[in-house]
Amino acid sequence: MNKNDVTDRARRAKKAGLIVGAAGTAKKDQALRSMADSLMEQRTAIMKANAVDMENARAQGLPAAFLDRLAITEKTIKSMADSILEVRALRDPVGEIIRAWTRPNGLLVGRMRIPLGVILMIYESRPNVTADASALCIKSGNAVILKGGSEALHSNRAIAGLLSDALERASLPREAIQLIDTPDKDVLYDFLKQDELIDLVIPRGGEGLIRAVAEHSRIPVLKHYKGICHVFVDADADPAMAESICFNAKVQRPGVCNAMETLLVHKDSAAEFLPAMIDRYRKAGVEIRGCEKTVHIVPDVRRATEEDWFTEYLDLILSVRVVDSLDQAIEHINHYGSHHTDSIVTKNVGNSMRFLREVDSSTVLVNASTRFSDGFQLGLGAEIGISTSKLHAFGPMGLEELTAQKFVIMGNGQIRE
Amino acid sequence: MNKNDVTDRARRAKKAGLIVGAAGTAKKDQALRSMADSLMEQRTAIMKANAVDMENARAQGLPAAFLDRLAITEKTIKSMADSILEVRALRDPVGEIIRAWTRPNGLLVGRMRIPLGVILMIYESRPNVTADASALCIKSGNAVILKGGSEALHSNRAIAGLLSDALERASLPREAIQLIDTPDKDVLYDFLKQDELIDLVIPRGGEGLIRAVAEHSRIPVLKHYKGICHVFVDADADPAMAESICFNAKVQRPGVCNAMETLLVHKDSAAEFLPAMIDRYRKAGVEIRGCEKTVHIVPDVRRATEEDWFTEYLDLILSVRVVDSLDQAIEHINHYGSHHTDSIVTKNVGNSMRFLREVDSSTVLVNASTRFSDGFQLGLGAEIGISTSKLHAFGPMGLEELTAQKFVIMGNGQIRE
Repeated sequence: MNKNDVTDRARRAKKAGLIVGAAGTAKKDQALRSMADSLMEQRTAIMKANAVDMENARAQGLPAAFLDRLAITEKTIKSMADSILEVRALRDPVGEIIRAWTRPNGLLVGRMRIPLGVILMIYESRPNVTADASALCIKSGNAVILKGGSEALHSNRAIAGLLSDALERASLPREAIQLIDTPDKDVLYDFLKQDELIDLVIPRGGEGLIRAVAEHSRIPVLKHYKGICHVFVDADADPAMAESICFNAKVQRPGVCNAMETLLVHKDSAAEFLPAMIDRYRKAGVEIRGCEKTVHIVPDVRRATEEDWFTEYLDLILSVRVVDSLDQAIEHINHYGSHHTDSIVTKNVGNSMRFLREVDSSTVLVNASTRFSDGFQLGLGAEIGISTSKLHAFGPMGLEELTAQKFVIMGNGQIRE
Repeated sequence: MNKNDVTDRARRAKKAGLIVGAAGTAKKDQALRSMADSLMEQRTAIMKANAVDMENARAQGLPAAFLDRLAITEKTIKSMADSILEVRALRDPVGEIIRAWTRPNGLLVGRMRIPLGVILMIYESRPNVTADASALCIKSGNAVILKGGSEALHSNRAIAGLLSDALERASLPREAIQLIDTPDKDVLYDFLKQDELIDLVIPRGGEGLIRAVAEHSRIPVLKHYKGICHVFVDADADPAMAESICFNAKVQRPGVCNAMETLLVHKDSAAEFLPAMIDRYRKAGVEIRGCEKTVHIVPDVRRATEEDWFTEYLDLILSVRVVDSLDQAIEHINHYGSHHTDSIVTKNVGNSMRFLREVDSSTVLVNASTRFSDGFQLGLGAEIGISTSKLHAFGPMGLEELTAQKFVIMGNGQIRE
């Protein structure tokens, strides 16, 4: 694929996007139904394509966890189809007028949700993203260009192909779902230069992938590099609630971006709280790295280095710091954190209000686990990614974040004096 | 200023922004009052600085219109101070919870407006933007880095200096308002690389300036290159209303971005409508360039070229095309337009709904002049720019567009199962 091919593909996506964007909900829902049906009907073909990818991956000696993410079973396909039907059941955001007001001259001014246009979705091994992202983009009236991991190329080709066929059966342009089916990095970089035709890039994967995308893109990128999430146990936190939340935030699923990486404890509750908490962590296999004061309270804890405070372990490791005050906790989070998700456990209303207001993160919680920072858990009905930069979207992104708002104005002959 | 100085300046802006962002409305309003007072008190010093700029500009032989935009009089200063007080009177968007809902597990999930952080504002000759942009950024809890036209350097230095002093008097950090006071382009380009410290760039000025900024920026840029605005007179438009709107949209202020550049007329109303309309335009000094059918109806009209449909005249020139249908009108606008502002004049409800929905522009009007596409006219209370790309903001941007939304969540001990 040379540069002209890339521009041509992007231009056709743009054109297809305009048609999907103007399509009514019924037509889009028909397409989504057809996409789900096709997945189920053609599951043998999908699994056959996936077998090729699996064989290549095994031949390359890729680790078991990788193979596990790559594998497509009957169950995976059923779950992809179900996800599409769930997106289908969500309210269509396109055309919604979220607010309207009347001006003194009688003009009715409203803000209407419209699709963004063309989304370039870049992701790593899991082939289910191919179906999930397509469903979210079509429901929100956008075209999508998909770039999955090269190890999943055969699987993604099979899935994207049948999704395009399904669009056509619903009289929508098949090019509203396109797959970049070459592992050639330069082709991806050429797509990332198409800022006149592609409206948004969403990379999902490791920090390396995301940095490379941001580096090469002339198109706006919604991304998060890291999730260094904190829980702050305040001086007057309910001890049982604090322990339950801190344990859940770290241990329930340590490998994900909304798991806690650093525990901050107010100096007035540290001596009471930390010994039992650390004991419980250790029984669950969590390694603790503590500040000087933590080590003073629980002597056999390993000392944390400055680097620990900046680290996203994604593992059963936790750094622990005793802080002097709410101010110091907020300062620590805003300095070492990643603007992702942070929680305070407190009974103090004033402190909870200050924490909500002053912590500069996309999701800020009071008396709840950081693990709730997720589009489904927050009630968005879906999640296409998480943004930790503030422009356009901040935090988990659902269907609405795939739309923009235009001004729509109804008059009866108004002119400007 | 070398690269380290630039990073240092940006870092100090970021730090100052966090303090302004956490400040309450009362403190910000006190600063705005102090800014307005300082302008009035130090008007002699401002006009003295402006006299240096004016002298240099005259020596360079800059045109009268340029000098006019550059000049600062007592009246200009009064109007700058008044604008600051108007911004002060607007509702503080920071901390507003625009929506909140309860999840089945009892979590209360809300979206709270927060400042973006640091705004880099780039503009050309008018020194009043220095005061206007500063007021909007401070009110919305942001820090601002200002880069005005080099011809206004002395004026901007005087204004920005006293605004910083005013911040200090209100116990806010003076570095929340900073001026890049060198005309060196490389310094500006170094600022445009500070994507870790600066959150948004808003360039205001000619297309050349805006393209150069977009080209060099690693920070998201909210911009509009051109305003190629259309009015479509439908088959059953009220003729008097159509004439009044079309005249206003073209003639009331032809040099601005929301003035009409192309008139589209449905073929069924063209023969009736165009002769009188064109006659009225010509009496107002408007040059008409028409399509073949227009020339057929009014024979002495000059033929429009393909390029005319893409042209923003910003002058008393109008291109006119007769179209066969609403579809052709929408197609023309989405193809030749600039996604800025477009209006339909019609009595037909169905056509008005289709136009609102299908025209891919930031402001779409029914039975009103394109000249209403303006933050003040739409009731935003202010305007810091207009965006014609869909990410983050689309159309006129007021205070709210200088904010992001974070998720704030109140629980009572919820953990994930």
